[in-house]
Amino acid sequence: MNILIKNAVIITMDSESPIVKGDIGIKGQTISFVGKDNTFTPDRIIDAKGNIVMPGLVNAHTHTPMSLLRSYADDLNLQQWLFDKIFPIEDTFTEDDIYWASMLSCVEMIQSGTIAFADMYFLNKGTAKAAIQSGMRANICRGLQCFEDKPSFEDDERMCEALELYREFDGSGDGRVKIDLSPHAVYTNTPKYLEYIANMAGKLGAGVHTHISETFVENEECIKKHGMTPTALLDSAGFFKTRTIAAHCVYLTDEDVNIFREKDINIVHNPTSNLKLASGIAPVGKYMQAGINVALGTDGAASNNNLNMFEEIHLAALLQKGVNKNPTDISAEDALKMATINGAKALGLKNTGVLKAGNNADLIIINIDKPHLTPYYNAHALVAYSVQASDVESVMVGGKFLMEKGQIKTLDVEQITYEIKKKGDRIRCHM
Amino acid sequence: MNILIKNAVIITMDSESPIVKGDIGIKGQTISFVGKDNTFTPDRIIDAKGNIVMPGLVNAHTHTPMSLLRSYADDLNLQQWLFDKIFPIEDTFTEDDIYWASMLSCVEMIQSGTIAFADMYFLNKGTAKAAIQSGMRANICRGLQCFEDKPSFEDDERMCEALELYREFDGSGDGRVKIDLSPHAVYTNTPKYLEYIANMAGKLGAGVHTHISETFVENEECIKKHGMTPTALLDSAGFFKTRTIAAHCVYLTDEDVNIFREKDINIVHNPTSNLKLASGIAPVGKYMQAGINVALGTDGAASNNNLNMFEEIHLAALLQKGVNKNPTDISAEDALKMATINGAKALGLKNTGVLKAGNNADLIIINIDKPHLTPYYNAHALVAYSVQASDVESVMVGGKFLMEKGQIKTLDVEQITYEIKKKGDRIRCHM
Repeated sequence: MNILIKNAVIITMDSESPIVKGDIGIKGQTISFVGKDNTFTPDRIIDAKGNIVMPGLVNAHTHTPMSLLRSYADDLNLQQWLFDKIFPIEDTFTEDDIYWASMLSCVEMIQSGTIAFADMYFLNKGTAKAAIQSGMRANICRGLQCFEDKPSFEDDERMCEALELYREFDGSGDGRVKIDLSPHAVYTNTPKYLEYIANMAGKLGAGVHTHISETFVENEECIKKHGMTPTALLDSAGFFKTRTIAAHCVYLTDEDVNIFREKDINIVHNPTSNLKLASGIAPVGKYMQAGINVALGTDGAASNNNLNMFEEIHLAALLQKGVNKNPTDISAEDALKMATINGAKALGLKNTGVLKAGNNADLIIINIDKPHLTPYYNAHALVAYSVQASDVESVMVGGKFLMEKGQIKTLDVEQITYEIKKKGDRIRCHM
Repeated sequence: MNILIKNAVIITMDSESPIVKGDIGIKGQTISFVGKDNTFTPDRIIDAKGNIVMPGLVNAHTHTPMSLLRSYADDLNLQQWLFDKIFPIEDTFTEDDIYWASMLSCVEMIQSGTIAFADMYFLNKGTAKAAIQSGMRANICRGLQCFEDKPSFEDDERMCEALELYREFDGSGDGRVKIDLSPHAVYTNTPKYLEYIANMAGKLGAGVHTHISETFVENEECIKKHGMTPTALLDSAGFFKTRTIAAHCVYLTDEDVNIFREKDINIVHNPTSNLKLASGIAPVGKYMQAGINVALGTDGAASNNNLNMFEEIHLAALLQKGVNKNPTDISAEDALKMATINGAKALGLKNTGVLKAGNNADLIIINIDKPHLTPYYNAHALVAYSVQASDVESVMVGGKFLMEKGQIKTLDVEQITYEIKKKGDRIRCHM
């Protein structure tokens, strides 16, 4: 099927022509042209007058099923939040919970313009099935934890789960689903187990997704225990040889920054979650100036409390300005890069994140014919500072609409919210 | 007319019963009861099942007509932004520009759940007329500036404009519109002119709306020039004897905080604007602990770039946690107080901000039957962290719907956006 999207303002994220006023031609799963091409013969024409078309957003760090715990526990100390609230209720979760919560999150992500996400959780088959059904792209990983060394890790339960997930789902959904390996964090794993994971990642050639230096305390304790920062410890354990997603990175040292640059590690900035859990504000302006790829994520909905990437774009652009007292830090365009092309790189999506001929037709259509988006002067600034998630009208992945004119095409929203409300009633009894 | 809003989750902001599941009865302009009253005979029944009803939001510091400059100039140094971009284009503004831009802002504010605003700008008759037509409540003031002393200020052009505005519009729109007096800031006025304004405010018994300690440089220069902080200078000039709205307050000293508490001065926190213009982050947690009333505002759309109070609520709750490394700072409920009851106090709206019998029927209805607001556990957290402006379905002021089920009732949205687009075309030529 050939689709022609006409008369749009196109934010391409292509440095050669960042803004194009014109058309996009889509042939099957791929962008055929951006601009004008009178030789293109469309089967279907979509008039995008009064709309901005841009690459779909990439949520590069989340815990998808935690939407089931949205507003379950807030404004608490981290220890109380985790140990008294989150961990006990997570212990009750079944694969059915994970499946429906992931379905709910896919709906929310699609409705807010997200086309791909990197997920870390457990019982992940539910998330993989949801990703396949939704039509989204997803990197999924089983968070690995091991507090005690064993003579051999070969029958380690969590790794067995991770490997089964890898065998069953890596490359599934027509290649949309990838399985990464995930050391949850340095403070939840022994150095030997970290080496074991790093070896396995190398053997499989799999990507790695982990939390690094989220809190000041994490750094302090790691240095005290191992004489190294979390980054140095992971490096010494043999990580960073395959594509790596490093979430948070609020407290990287200059030496860590050098390792990140040398090993081309992808940072994921989670501004809302870092503020809400009182972790701090990651100096991502500095990281970007050092040449490191910085993507954006929402973290889980329990510490956000949503999966709205427009809020993260907005915060990413605002926070560095205020904290560094420099209004030119992280321009609107930089913030959009973080949420698109940089996120795509972090997830290893080679042909996503830039609208240009030959790339995947992974895009969103935003209706800017609204009072809060009027008048129109500058597309990058309008999207970064004024557009709301609810202004996204259509979402396309690989040439297929996941949402069109506000209607989700791939999932049954009514059934999903029905199932989630039932589960919410059960969870409310634990409060 | 008696209106019964049924089956809602009601966030009252009344400390005696913060959350009520039940009904609200409205008789004319006033709330008749909150909870259950079988003796109430409604002329109209609205089923609010799956909805949260709460007090309408108060935007306690904005420059309404600046929506005409949304995304006109961003990511620039303050001097370049103000002197090269904002001031030159503002010099071209006519009262017709102000009127239509204020109309646009009223639409945006109503659509995002705001029922009252405190505005500082010029050619304010346009704003007053828009406020009257929109049905919103508004405190409007002419920003006063005077860089050179004169033997007498009696024929001062700006003050004459302010007094004419006061005479013509104070108490207009059935009492919905109030006119305050506004020394723009200490750095744009001589001490003698400040005394003149303070005297005039005292004479009229008018409220005062000003910017205080927005930037570090403002404080430094004021101390260098006058040997006092901006707060102390205004105090010595005779201010703070009538209700005062003090916007920003990023850099109050401990002595300033004492003056604020003693004189019951209302602080307006503008988190987005303070970040975007790189002013810094106001320590509002500390101010609230000191017992000062802290409200919330968007500032103008040129430094935000919208008038969405939900974003300010969200940021107010998040920022103090991250900066103070304390996840219990500014709870969800505190952030909602800032945007409702505290804002109402700042604007002198005695019967607004709390849903209880006898108060004005100034409320909003939020549809929470949406995927990104599911499941439901906690109303305050859901509104502060997850609700989006676009989830507001209905807005009522004094018992009258300004918006119902997404339809603006008091303004012609199509005509307003048509007029603004024409003006945008003119302004674009200056870019």
